[in-house]
Amino acid sequence: MTTLYLLSSGPGDIGYFPPLARKALEQAEHLVAYGLYLDLLGDLISNKQRYELPLGEEIERARLALNLAADGKKTALISSGDIGIYAMATLVFELLDNADESAKNPQWQDVIIEVIPGISAIQALASRSGAPIAHDFCTISLSDLLTPWEVIEKRLNAAGDGDFVIAFYNPVSRKRDWQLEKAKQILLNYRPENTPVMLGKNLSRANETITHTTLAKLDIQQVDMLTLVMVGNSESKRIETAQKQWVYTPRGYGKKL
Amino acid sequence: MTTLYLLSSGPGDIGYFPPLARKALEQAEHLVAYGLYLDLLGDLISNKQRYELPLGEEIERARLALNLAADGKKTALISSGDIGIYAMATLVFELLDNADESAKNPQWQDVIIEVIPGISAIQALASRSGAPIAHDFCTISLSDLLTPWEVIEKRLNAAGDGDFVIAFYNPVSRKRDWQLEKAKQILLNYRPENTPVMLGKNLSRANETITHTTLAKLDIQQVDMLTLVMVGNSESKRIETAQKQWVYTPRGYGKKL
Repeated sequence: MTTLYLLSSGPGDIGYFPPLARKALEQAEHLVAYGLYLDLLGDLISNKQRYELPLGEEIERARLALNLAADGKKTALISSGDIGIYAMATLVFELLDNADESAKNPQWQDVIIEVIPGISAIQALASRSGAPIAHDFCTISLSDLLTPWEVIEKRLNAAGDGDFVIAFYNPVSRKRDWQLEKAKQILLNYRPENTPVMLGKNLSRANETITHTTLAKLDIQQVDMLTLVMVGNSESKRIETAQKQWVYTPRGYGKKL
Repeated sequence: MTTLYLLSSGPGDIGYFPPLARKALEQAEHLVAYGLYLDLLGDLISNKQRYELPLGEEIERARLALNLAADGKKTALISSGDIGIYAMATLVFELLDNADESAKNPQWQDVIIEVIPGISAIQALASRSGAPIAHDFCTISLSDLLTPWEVIEKRLNAAGDGDFVIAFYNPVSRKRDWQLEKAKQILLNYRPENTPVMLGKNLSRANETITHTTLAKLDIQQVDMLTLVMVGNSESKRIETAQKQWVYTPRGYGKKL
């Protein structure tokens, strides 16, 4: 019985890659990932067999990883951020559950799976911005490639109505350019124009930029595929210290100060 | 100008404590935390000055950490999990923003703050369970000590209506025993009785237990202060391999398998 590690590489900086993940990586001899994520791991993977499949070939990556492990090869399937959050882990379980019988390998059943979490973009951006997700928050992917837009729009309204702090994953792509503007307009029905908004680009990587703006001033042109967009709730506040500008969402302790 | 590290110690297992956090800990000479969280760091903190304040003295901990740093002492304020998620980071910013002038130290303004994220309980439980938070999810604290119950109830309905996967932080405490049952009843208005529910107790620590149940069968007696409760959305599915039972939430790729 061979182990398939579903391994999170974190937002980018190798400083976020914990000992437990390092240990899993040492065990694995075969690494399956989008190439960029492997590059970020640098020297840690110099003696490994690499299988780099491009963006768009997610199902193929999951299938390859399962097949390698089923063949008795110690394998790690790697995603950036947290592999459990909008990433590859779920595809492995979907394949185990739903693949056509013809495409299924009966030995997949015996693969030992170990999922290793990592720092997701929402946490990296939160840590740079102050403490915006200190109270109830949600994540919403704005990609309607696999989720009908009506479902996304319902969630936007629910998140607005529930006054959750929101992190938007997949806010735009080359082919999707209107969803974030629509999300902004929906949220303006629920939150003040000056609600804090933070844009985090290339988080923990070279050329990281953090931009503070407001919901009304959020300019879709500032956002690209590598940007995480975070919108405060109605309680989120801005403050400035000598160091820089911060945003925090109070837990309600204020009255006791 | 002295740095105050707002440092996350992760769910418990020191294997989740990444190099960047270790480096911050090496820099800090004064550590402020609830005692248990310091114990989990073991040998890493053997030569440090420890300031252990009990549960309930959160504001005092944040104030002490700010005061130490303002006095030129290299200080780390430490929370388990992610210090930005239902934890101490936001209290530091609340104090900077809102403390009575009489209780404020003008030198707080010059403290350099560095927030270091960590693995939160939701990620630890997700990784043990499979891939339940692979699509849109939210977190809700069921503690009504600092948030009015009406706000929490509104969020429960919003999360139900929006079909978010939900993680409940602070599900019960010695003094709070009815909120989780109420939350369950609200969600049953939106989700099937057999919706997967996972309970994670002592995550990544000795005596970790993961319990799989359903929304209808969720027994509040199984939940204590150290338990994270996760409720799947209407799409979340259970599967079993030779190894164990898993829950995953599909991203919608199913149709392409």
